[in-house]
Amino acid sequence: MRVEPGFLLADADPDATPGYAGRKRDAVGALAEGAEVLATLQEKFFADSTVGGTRSVLLVLQAMDTAGKGGIVKHVVGAVDPGGVHLHAFKAPTEEELAHDFLWRVHREVPRAGQIGVFDRSHYEDVLIGSVRKLAPDDVIAQRFHDIVAFEEELVANGTVIVKVMLHISSDEQKERLAARLERPDKHWKYNPGDVTERLLWNDYQAAYQRVFDETSTTDAPWYVVPANRKWYARLAVQHLLIDALQSIDPQWPKPEYDVEHEKARLAAS
Amino acid sequence: MRVEPGFLLADADPDATPGYAGRKRDAVGALAEGAEVLATLQEKFFADSTVGGTRSVLLVLQAMDTAGKGGIVKHVVGAVDPGGVHLHAFKAPTEEELAHDFLWRVHREVPRAGQIGVFDRSHYEDVLIGSVRKLAPDDVIAQRFHDIVAFEEELVANGTVIVKVMLHISSDEQKERLAARLERPDKHWKYNPGDVTERLLWNDYQAAYQRVFDETSTTDAPWYVVPANRKWYARLAVQHLLIDALQSIDPQWPKPEYDVEHEKARLAAS
Repeated sequence: MRVEPGFLLADADPDATPGYAGRKRDAVGALAEGAEVLATLQEKFFADSTVGGTRSVLLVLQAMDTAGKGGIVKHVVGAVDPGGVHLHAFKAPTEEELAHDFLWRVHREVPRAGQIGVFDRSHYEDVLIGSVRKLAPDDVIAQRFHDIVAFEEELVANGTVIVKVMLHISSDEQKERLAARLERPDKHWKYNPGDVTERLLWNDYQAAYQRVFDETSTTDAPWYVVPANRKWYARLAVQHLLIDALQSIDPQWPKPEYDVEHEKARLAAS
Repeated sequence: MRVEPGFLLADADPDATPGYAGRKRDAVGALAEGAEVLATLQEKFFADSTVGGTRSVLLVLQAMDTAGKGGIVKHVVGAVDPGGVHLHAFKAPTEEELAHDFLWRVHREVPRAGQIGVFDRSHYEDVLIGSVRKLAPDDVIAQRFHDIVAFEEELVANGTVIVKVMLHISSDEQKERLAARLERPDKHWKYNPGDVTERLLWNDYQAAYQRVFDETSTTDAPWYVVPANRKWYARLAVQHLLIDALQSIDPQWPKPEYDVEHEKARLAAS
């Protein structure tokens, strides 16, 4: 699942459930258990930042339409105390954003110490749709790859753990999911005719993702390709990537910077 | 619970559970049921904003320390899709914030259309701690009350439903909760010696809240005093205030702005 040198997206099975032996019916319980673990880790992590802890976590979510980014945000990120999360959904850039370098709007949204940042789409759109739609010439795209690696390196050096996830679905699965949106009036708003227009460029996008992995899956900020044809699996997998990220930081409950007994006496007298 | 003319905070019972006949053991189920209702309403509300809906909701949370703001954020707001929430915790103002008018940093954080904004503390600190600690002279405080009413009036005119909540605990309950924080190493980080210092000014703060209600509980942006000695009750009550706010907007699933049958054909051919 972790993208190592030589990884080929074309060989990755979107139906697979690597590292998980259970079935769908077990997954709900497993997700709830993981949510408890994640919540406790997150609280410790946040607590530590109130006494000088400088670490942060950044989850980058990228995927083809309907792959389930929204479900990850709702069911995985949604299980964490909102006070410890900084979520940002990147849309088509505004006029003001376009008047700056492409990382300007991204840098503003990175998590502060103690926060779990979540990017719903990201700077990777600038090299994905950017190259597929030829929104920028090749030399600019190449420069952006270079800039992204340097940018992420700086964040990591500053204490950010970066977890980059591509939710991987098959073209057939996307077709079914888009069809389901067209069947249900309460899902019509999630469908956009542009989704089919992009879908026709499926192979170009897959090639663009392959290049993203080749160019930007570094030791410090690796990519994870998460099979996502089974939504329950993808949620569990991303939850565990977040748990791993926090465990690598190993936050501890802060020691009080006051005299506990003295404070008990002050409180009792109040 | 809604602050009407003549309301006296001193007469409000922090142990009460107005409007709820159940007991603590029923409350967990009731909160989970409410979360489903809230989640569906929120999704419709968000969906509507993608086709031009202009309404927003702003929940303002104020309280004495330990009253349970954090629990409301975690358990009530936390049950809503994070993508539809904009949460901001106001801390002591920074140097840059102090170099602006007191509403500058507040205005930047108001929710956009389709969002539920949540203020964990707010512009009301500027008239609460502001007057108790005499951080500003009386005429400035009076001017701020005037400014707050005008500011909220503008937001309401623009389509924001403002729900202002004061979580109301008793002084004895606060003492118990602070003592509990001093007993548990995993809660030590939540305790601050300054909490007792503020506690010694309990009556001044209660009087300051009374003035807030007198001056700013308007028809368009009323205050709700939520009894909060029982955390389970306060969570249910605030959840229902949010549900009421969204129901007053009565969002509907958007009608598709595309031809569904035509899109089905395009998708099938893709």
